[in-house]
Amino acid sequence: MTTDTVEKAVSKTLLLDGRKITISGIAKGSGMICPNMATMLSFIATDADVDAAFLQQCLSDAVEDSFNAITVDGDTSTNDACVLIATGKAGNKALDSNSAGAATFVAELNALCLHLAQAIVRDAEGATKFVTVSVAQAQSKAEAKKVAYTIAHSPLVKTALFASDPNWGRILAAVGRAGVEQLDIAGVNIFLGDVCIVRNGGVDSDYTEEQGQRVMNRHEINITVELSRGSESATIWTSDLSHEYVRINSEYRS
Amino acid sequence: MTTDTVEKAVSKTLLLDGRKITISGIAKGSGMICPNMATMLSFIATDADVDAAFLQQCLSDAVEDSFNAITVDGDTSTNDACVLIATGKAGNKALDSNSAGAATFVAELNALCLHLAQAIVRDAEGATKFVTVSVAQAQSKAEAKKVAYTIAHSPLVKTALFASDPNWGRILAAVGRAGVEQLDIAGVNIFLGDVCIVRNGGVDSDYTEEQGQRVMNRHEINITVELSRGSESATIWTSDLSHEYVRINSEYRS
Repeated sequence: MTTDTVEKAVSKTLLLDGRKITISGIAKGSGMICPNMATMLSFIATDADVDAAFLQQCLSDAVEDSFNAITVDGDTSTNDACVLIATGKAGNKALDSNSAGAATFVAELNALCLHLAQAIVRDAEGATKFVTVSVAQAQSKAEAKKVAYTIAHSPLVKTALFASDPNWGRILAAVGRAGVEQLDIAGVNIFLGDVCIVRNGGVDSDYTEEQGQRVMNRHEINITVELSRGSESATIWTSDLSHEYVRINSEYRS
Repeated sequence: MTTDTVEKAVSKTLLLDGRKITISGIAKGSGMICPNMATMLSFIATDADVDAAFLQQCLSDAVEDSFNAITVDGDTSTNDACVLIATGKAGNKALDSNSAGAATFVAELNALCLHLAQAIVRDAEGATKFVTVSVAQAQSKAEAKKVAYTIAHSPLVKTALFASDPNWGRILAAVGRAGVEQLDIAGVNIFLGDVCIVRNGGVDSDYTEEQGQRVMNRHEINITVELSRGSESATIWTSDLSHEYVRINSEYRS
């Protein structure tokens, strides 16, 4: 059985050595999604000629900030896979990290992976919201990702998103329990879209619930957290927790 | 607003120095429950005379395997608290770790804490199941708890429990992604109640879905996992993920 409901496919083209290069990818998945490259499946192919070691490095890097930066339910699957095939049929000079076209190839590959990864979240089981969680001013990227995933996995945050409820307390509570050592709550700022809801650990003095409600009513919502601890950041993408998610995963045999 | 629906209170009595001692406790909480003694509240009082340092040690130990071993939704609250007060009014000789009655006092306190902690899970928001997750043969208690919490927090396991669905694959997948280093899947056994569903990492050859279904239809369900890695174990208590949980947490303002 599959619960995929939309096509997840994208192509990118670029020029290398005067040759038109195509990179195409497809993906599947909408539940049991918290990839750690191990049910999500993605297959990407290009006609470019690319050095094998460089190709692997490009894919590993691209996956880190795309497929490995999405979560629907936190349930990492047993068999996530992302495969990248380069046929060399385009006839370009074999690409490696020193090639003039390397940066362009990497940029297009990264954009393609991000498109497919976000497509999985847009098709998340039962989802009514597409949510971007960005955590900035962390001491490390791992710390930023940990805070972002704690917010993204919180059933209380996810049900608030489903309800279009600007419940800043649930977001702030998730930041607090994320396991950041010696977090100074006075340094925490939280934004819903462009609206500051929490400033220096407390409700922003200019915040009104109407402002938060306006952002929460949207289908696409950005949550941004600043930790005031460093200069590292991470962004992940997730969905809300709806009645439909519970129905799909409790009645899937019916 | 509170979503507590049942009384969470218990008393224990014991004899110390010929004196009748009473320990009474109350608790509140049903959502945002994954205590790490920091919204769950519990107040316990005894009329025993107890040395302060010993009393603190007794409470810390009791909490570890009771309040700190339950989860409803994985959302650790910002202000869990468990307070134990000893008035000394019973007139017993002040109790410390060397007292003859220490073991009895500790046993009754532990039983009281476990009763209150389980009462919170029985009243979990939207819950239809009371689930005990035991993990045995781990290298450390922390490892056993990590595996148990990964199972208990999995939305796929929790929706399968809501559906009374003996989906052993979701439980096994949660064990696999729990982050145990060098886990040998061939050593993993999983039991639903007294029914072995997974033996040596695969479906048990004697298992039939009717057997699993019989256990899953119950209101109280035990999930036991053996890891074949060591001799440490841990038990935690949790609930299922139902439409009612989503309703309570998305419509709480209505």
